[in-house]
Amino acid sequence: MEKIPDKQSIIENAESYLRERSKLVEQAMNEYLADADESIQLLIEAIKYSLFAGGKRLRPVLVLASAELFGGDIEKAKMTASAIEMIHTYSLIHDDLPELDNDDYRRGKPTLHKVYGGAIALLAGDGLLTLAFELLGRTGNPEVVVEVAKSAGIRGMVGGQFMDLEAEGKQIPYEKLKQIHKLKTGALITTSLRVGALISNAKEHDLNAITRYGENLGIAFQIVDDILNVVGDEKKMGKPTGTDAKLKKSTYPSLFGIEKSRELAKMHIEQAIESIQEYGDKADPMRYLAWYVIFREK
Amino acid sequence: MEKIPDKQSIIENAESYLRERSKLVEQAMNEYLADADESIQLLIEAIKYSLFAGGKRLRPVLVLASAELFGGDIEKAKMTASAIEMIHTYSLIHDDLPELDNDDYRRGKPTLHKVYGGAIALLAGDGLLTLAFELLGRTGNPEVVVEVAKSAGIRGMVGGQFMDLEAEGKQIPYEKLKQIHKLKTGALITTSLRVGALISNAKEHDLNAITRYGENLGIAFQIVDDILNVVGDEKKMGKPTGTDAKLKKSTYPSLFGIEKSRELAKMHIEQAIESIQEYGDKADPMRYLAWYVIFREK
Repeated sequence: MEKIPDKQSIIENAESYLRERSKLVEQAMNEYLADADESIQLLIEAIKYSLFAGGKRLRPVLVLASAELFGGDIEKAKMTASAIEMIHTYSLIHDDLPELDNDDYRRGKPTLHKVYGGAIALLAGDGLLTLAFELLGRTGNPEVVVEVAKSAGIRGMVGGQFMDLEAEGKQIPYEKLKQIHKLKTGALITTSLRVGALISNAKEHDLNAITRYGENLGIAFQIVDDILNVVGDEKKMGKPTGTDAKLKKSTYPSLFGIEKSRELAKMHIEQAIESIQEYGDKADPMRYLAWYVIFREK
Repeated sequence: MEKIPDKQSIIENAESYLRERSKLVEQAMNEYLADADESIQLLIEAIKYSLFAGGKRLRPVLVLASAELFGGDIEKAKMTASAIEMIHTYSLIHDDLPELDNDDYRRGKPTLHKVYGGAIALLAGDGLLTLAFELLGRTGNPEVVVEVAKSAGIRGMVGGQFMDLEAEGKQIPYEKLKQIHKLKTGALITTSLRVGALISNAKEHDLNAITRYGENLGIAFQIVDDILNVVGDEKKMGKPTGTDAKLKKSTYPSLFGIEKSRELAKMHIEQAIESIQEYGDKADPMRYLAWYVIFREK
């Protein structure tokens, strides 16, 4: 079992890594959205409102970290990372629409449809999802397109979103909760790591190692999300807490309590770190990021 | 100038070609939607409600016709054709949502959100768009992914949809109308033909010929759509007519009148057919389909 390293230094290392790599992704995303026709400027503005709303950039940074570990091409890595962040952002925009969660705030700002209206929010989401696949196609690697489409689609994120909708207000068993989390959140996190490896032509063995890291990280991430929804600071998180309890959602804390949920998250982080042990110091960013997932306050 | 061939025989040939090739696409689409987890069956059902609602299948059949002309692999052609039809269907589902057109009927049936609710309609659209890219990725040709994403995205269909929204209730100049039509409808029609050629490794010269065919066909298609919105039979079309006039939309008939619009459409069909003259009898399906676009009553 790994010793838990000093929390403060972990957070500093992780935040500095996230900050630096985020900059690369943000520059790239800005570039991909430049030079659009005058007549769609308002749509681009709406897209940027959500895309640059202060997200953690965890997923795209995981793409870059994985590509770095396996020696991938930086341009391809930036395209792939941007695509993943665009898909994550589109899913938030559509989730916030009146049809689904009807949320007014996200990351401390009014949601996109509250500012630009539902029509533009719907189209901004559709546009982001489509642009993401343009970028993935531009990597020249069709395997990456298939991988991301699977994890974002009806057998992945969209399917998880649908199951979550169906489960609202119901008590669901732990197995079902795990399945929903895996599809809704875990799939895209695992995929972020896998595509970073795929564009780097990583070997089967490396792909398996990074997949195990991603799966455990994804589960821990979701457990911590559930915990923060109970005990988190609304100001730091930029959105209301206590919403799961209000909707009577089944969550880790509702099934196991806060303490046991924290232990579970920690166990999964240890397993994630265990999966990449063989890579030594080169995998340090992966270690910081893993611990950061449970130390984070938003 | 081409002589207009016998209308009745053209319609019969085109409809028989559309019927046969549609069957291939429908079988393929059913296959791609099979074996989904029990827990997303209702989502699959909703997707099928729209995907098998009696569309003309013009776009996917154009993919197959183009791939046939240039000797492409039939499995890749079916995947690509299905992807195009899924993208067309997703765009209709999202267009019908309350955020955009708020339409209650489509092809003579209640719209998806009227039957399954807005949440499922939104997710069904997202799922179809994502599945389309999974299929395009599976063709192994990243160029096809990029081509389709561009024509469906913010610089294509989504952008056109946005401009159309902005233009509602305004008198817009002819140039603007052409731009909106090109992006909203023309782009995906031209792309259907281009990707059929791309998966067949067609030469640059052939790709240019089929692109000219597609561009002219797309313009004629949109002009006829505008005409049918004025003079069409609601029963045959399965949706209300006169809606453009009610919304004070700028259309070909509103700018040029019905007669002149018909002439324009015919001129573009003749140019489309001219573009593929060199391929002789092999291109007969392309000729039928082109005339069918202006002879159709829905």
